[in-house]
Amino acid sequence: MSPLLTDDLRDDESAEADRLAAKAPTIARHVIEAVTPSVDGGRYPVKRIAGEPCVVEADIFRDGHDVIRAVIKWRREKDAGFTEAPMTLFDNDRWRGEFPLEENARYVFTIEAWTDRFASWLADFTKKASAGRNVASDLLEGIAIVEAIRRRAKGPDMAVLSKTLERMRRVPAVDASSAIEIVSIPELAEIAVRDGDRAEANTCPTLFEVIADRPRARFGAWYEMFPRSQGAVPGKATTLRDAERRLPEISAMGFDVVYLTPIHPIGRTNRKGPNNKLVSDGAGPGSPWAIGSADGGHTAIEPSLGTLDDFDHFAATTAKLGMEVALDFAIQCSPDHPWVREHPQWFRHRPDGSIKYAENPPKEYQDIYPVDFDTPDRDGLMKELLRVVLFWVGHGVRILRVDNPHTKPVGFWQWLIAQVHEKHPDVIFLAEAFTRPKMMKVLAKTGFTQSYTYFTWRNTKLELTEYLTELAQIGMQEYFRPNFFTNTPDILTDVLQKGGRPAFKMRLVLAATMSPSYGIYSGYELCENDAVAAGTEEYLNSEKYEIKVRDWNQPGNIKEFVALVNGIRKENPALHHLTNIRFLPADSDDILFYVRATPDRSNVILVAVNLDPFQWHDCTVTVPPEEIGVAPGGTYRVTDLLTGAVYTWGERNYVRLDPNIEPAHILRVEKP
Amino acid sequence: MSPLLTDDLRDDESAEADRLAAKAPTIARHVIEAVTPSVDGGRYPVKRIAGEPCVVEADIFRDGHDVIRAVIKWRREKDAGFTEAPMTLFDNDRWRGEFPLEENARYVFTIEAWTDRFASWLADFTKKASAGRNVASDLLEGIAIVEAIRRRAKGPDMAVLSKTLERMRRVPAVDASSAIEIVSIPELAEIAVRDGDRAEANTCPTLFEVIADRPRARFGAWYEMFPRSQGAVPGKATTLRDAERRLPEISAMGFDVVYLTPIHPIGRTNRKGPNNKLVSDGAGPGSPWAIGSADGGHTAIEPSLGTLDDFDHFAATTAKLGMEVALDFAIQCSPDHPWVREHPQWFRHRPDGSIKYAENPPKEYQDIYPVDFDTPDRDGLMKELLRVVLFWVGHGVRILRVDNPHTKPVGFWQWLIAQVHEKHPDVIFLAEAFTRPKMMKVLAKTGFTQSYTYFTWRNTKLELTEYLTELAQIGMQEYFRPNFFTNTPDILTDVLQKGGRPAFKMRLVLAATMSPSYGIYSGYELCENDAVAAGTEEYLNSEKYEIKVRDWNQPGNIKEFVALVNGIRKENPALHHLTNIRFLPADSDDILFYVRATPDRSNVILVAVNLDPFQWHDCTVTVPPEEIGVAPGGTYRVTDLLTGAVYTWGERNYVRLDPNIEPAHILRVEKP
Repeated sequence: MSPLLTDDLRDDESAEADRLAAKAPTIARHVIEAVTPSVDGGRYPVKRIAGEPCVVEADIFRDGHDVIRAVIKWRREKDAGFTEAPMTLFDNDRWRGEFPLEENARYVFTIEAWTDRFASWLADFTKKASAGRNVASDLLEGIAIVEAIRRRAKGPDMAVLSKTLERMRRVPAVDASSAIEIVSIPELAEIAVRDGDRAEANTCPTLFEVIADRPRARFGAWYEMFPRSQGAVPGKATTLRDAERRLPEISAMGFDVVYLTPIHPIGRTNRKGPNNKLVSDGAGPGSPWAIGSADGGHTAIEPSLGTLDDFDHFAATTAKLGMEVALDFAIQCSPDHPWVREHPQWFRHRPDGSIKYAENPPKEYQDIYPVDFDTPDRDGLMKELLRVVLFWVGHGVRILRVDNPHTKPVGFWQWLIAQVHEKHPDVIFLAEAFTRPKMMKVLAKTGFTQSYTYFTWRNTKLELTEYLTELAQIGMQEYFRPNFFTNTPDILTDVLQKGGRPAFKMRLVLAATMSPSYGIYSGYELCENDAVAAGTEEYLNSEKYEIKVRDWNQPGNIKEFVALVNGIRKENPALHHLTNIRFLPADSDDILFYVRATPDRSNVILVAVNLDPFQWHDCTVTVPPEEIGVAPGGTYRVTDLLTGAVYTWGERNYVRLDPNIEPAHILRVEKP
Repeated sequence: MSPLLTDDLRDDESAEADRLAAKAPTIARHVIEAVTPSVDGGRYPVKRIAGEPCVVEADIFRDGHDVIRAVIKWRREKDAGFTEAPMTLFDNDRWRGEFPLEENARYVFTIEAWTDRFASWLADFTKKASAGRNVASDLLEGIAIVEAIRRRAKGPDMAVLSKTLERMRRVPAVDASSAIEIVSIPELAEIAVRDGDRAEANTCPTLFEVIADRPRARFGAWYEMFPRSQGAVPGKATTLRDAERRLPEISAMGFDVVYLTPIHPIGRTNRKGPNNKLVSDGAGPGSPWAIGSADGGHTAIEPSLGTLDDFDHFAATTAKLGMEVALDFAIQCSPDHPWVREHPQWFRHRPDGSIKYAENPPKEYQDIYPVDFDTPDRDGLMKELLRVVLFWVGHGVRILRVDNPHTKPVGFWQWLIAQVHEKHPDVIFLAEAFTRPKMMKVLAKTGFTQSYTYFTWRNTKLELTEYLTELAQIGMQEYFRPNFFTNTPDILTDVLQKGGRPAFKMRLVLAATMSPSYGIYSGYELCENDAVAAGTEEYLNSEKYEIKVRDWNQPGNIKEFVALVNGIRKENPALHHLTNIRFLPADSDDILFYVRATPDRSNVILVAVNLDPFQWHDCTVTVPPEEIGVAPGGTYRVTDLLTGAVYTWGERNYVRLDPNIEPAHILRVEKP
């Protein structure tokens, strides 16, 4: 016995005998790791667009020198069987393949790898035979392998295999070059992949999910409006029928989505007055986000707007103009909402019997009750909310802008969106979460199709560069689709308040050319910029609390500019993608310069924006020739799509942008 | 019915009714993500050292504004119940905590988060009361919450709660400051965490694994030797008893691990002769990696080395000198190995009945049969290999250097190492895989304690900087522990062949001060540098195939230098860690300059190495004051631990290194 053996070790011996008696486990022979696209190792789905291929990569390898094969196994999530797509090695144990996302649906995929006995034998045989070694026995091994393949083969493959076997049996092993020639025909290798045993096959244990959305999920220009404020008579709400009259103009400006603030009955209790003052005379129209009255709740229409039929008509008219309606889904209730009476358990009651209204001290929302997800009837509440969404889906609505999703459980959204998508994968959910970054990210990971962003608060060159890099290039792009709103009923930023018309044009160009999805809230085209007070981002006389009347053609409007920019977006596919943005050198801190190109460089757009709305700036911008596909030192023509001007450019170019003329160049590179 | 409703949608209605009838799922209310330390999202264990805390971080948050709490739940893997360690929020939804790794064992942990109803109420109450709002009802809510806590509380907490309740009931709600004071005592918050309901608690679904190794897993100097070549008589093998005579000298050089090349019986069939020539006269000693003969296999001792008792004696003598023996575990057999006869199914037979020997064309290893993991008796093979390891573990061996693990299934190693660690967590496995990077990484991920590296082939400043950054700072450090060998019986690099004694000193300093684990193969201390041919890294007259006799005190040896460097390593804890390396500016491409410091900066080591063994170089090196804990502009003294020289340094310092004097400075920063 060893002098180093301790008592403790001796005690272990029976346990070790047990261990030796137990069966060793099955081994997954092929390592399959670092699979892309994926989010958090497959915990969440990645987002793609239907009609495009899903390119999959992975590290795949095994011990030793055998030749391995790999396939993507993919299917629509709800289907039963997998389809296979081949993968090929392209770099240092990294493999790549792709499968089609033909439908607007959820897909899943994994990867299978196996060892190709024939190819492994062939590689060794060729090396040995070429080195002049005795390969008589090796040839016999090869014959046995080909025979095994023939036993599994069918149809025309049989003939190829039989003929090869005959030739392999006849060739003298010393005739290395003939032997190699016989076994090296590509057809044989293909048959071995097709019919050969998948030796030691194993599959990556993770099933990766891909949401293939319809194209609107990525690309679209949104127009937000209060349907009641589309008329010309002071104090008089417009109906949905009246509001339809503005649709041709919105369409002419090039918008794709008409997003309506809530259209449901507005409560009377604690109705807010102008500029968010508590209880006016009760005669005001109230905030559309105080949802629910004696006239109904989330599935009803505010009577002053009209009826459900009127809504259907509005949606149909929008569709005829090539646009879609987006509805607002705000899970909150006025004290007069039917749920308050019918499902009191969905609200948090205070010890004095009253229901807690929404508040975020010092802010108070006396006209709104939040629903309480801590309710013992969470099941009933969740199903009713699903019913509401399905109700509007039943009315053809396919886009929902979700109000404050971060104040409801993330898991609720994951469930709700998956439930809706099961039958209606075309429904787009936009998360209106302006909150901490990790919550915004997880809402996107768990299912929101698009997300509001910090864009409105990113003003400097550094801020914009860093933010776009984060959104488009370092991971978020797999699951988070930004929708850059220039403004909202709650956000009139400092630069717009102070920078006037040039600022409105400048921020429009940024939103529209940095993000494939972007939007404006109505009034932007009129350069409305009066805040309720200094240091706030709230509008003066906000439309949230009163009916607004505007002259949609008032002097100074930028409607033509908006139409021009939206037209440029539509015509240039380089602007339909998020991840192709690359920032290029511009030797001024006030001029932001970037390029977007389609993968084949058939469409290349250069954008230079003067971020300072108050004065002109100039600089030299650098265009690396490879970015736009021209030879080093070569020149090329660019057309400014905003002005029609044509310039000859090279690697370094002079740019001067005066905000009072045009704050930006949107240059299309003209191919020779 | 909506004009937009299609037939297809109508068909869906019954399915949707079904969906609304089904129960909504339970929601995990708290998001717990981005947990560190972890490898591939928890798929593989992270590595730590027993006796140190495991610092855990995660993104933790929930919807809304409620106050949340989180704990680490941890246990030894084999224990039943979890222990909890608190986590605290430190930044933007990022939480941190730690738990102790007291033992050399495998641990697991996860994270639980919940909502603290009292703290959530307190935050709201304080805000509202401070804003002068009516909080009468809020106070009643608070009383109800505290009452609920009292129902669950025990011992002294009861008294605090009762007293608080009494005060809460008595205080007038209008007396905001008194009310706030009553409910804001820290003790109450602590009791709420301790006794309060863990509202909506949920746990991260992943169980993260941590291997807490003994300190030798991270820090140690290795000495590799052929026990048969430790004597002075040409052609005569030394026995293990003879070889013991070298141990005091190895100990005096400061080594911690004596790694013996295989000590098992060497086969006779196709025994290789000097310089790897096939079949000498059969009288040569053969390669120790051709394991197995009539005298036994992997659990026997080569008779010319002695007996098992002699091995035990050797190990005991090594231990008495404060060192450990490492054995070589090479899964391969000579044609004479007992397994070939007893378990022929473990070897791959060719159609002509012969067994395939190892080859990697054009290289041939006629004296070695690989075992065949494709055997139908894989279970028997795996268990026999486990038995071999446990046999040597039974003889006190706690370090195994594993030969070519990348030619055996990764899953086999994962199983084997876990099996051994179950009872013997102190066994260290070093992976000798010189192969593609992803295979080397996955072997470390699946269980190898340490790994050979590309260090020998990283020579330039850029190469070394990039490689150390990859190993120590961008993810690998969680699972991959490098062991920097300066040379091996197979690797005599170009710089050593050409650079002579200065190169041997330079590469020693790099290995010993860049990696906490490093090693030399014997002969390095004599600066042996004759290659078998130009353009190869093989030694001339390699010890692998013949018995070597050396004068261990021959002129030009660097034994004292080795002892000096190993002594510096032992005395300076900054050199015991991998991740604390930081490269500092040196304005010469030939001088590499880096700092290592303990976290408290009680030990700070600056190393400057002249990478050119042929001529002196000088440069200015920059030491950012914050790296070494001195005030900006301040000076400090450094002692060169190689020469004893003392210098006064500041932020920028002149360095001149002549390889013929000393190729490096190893400077200890002296605290005032």
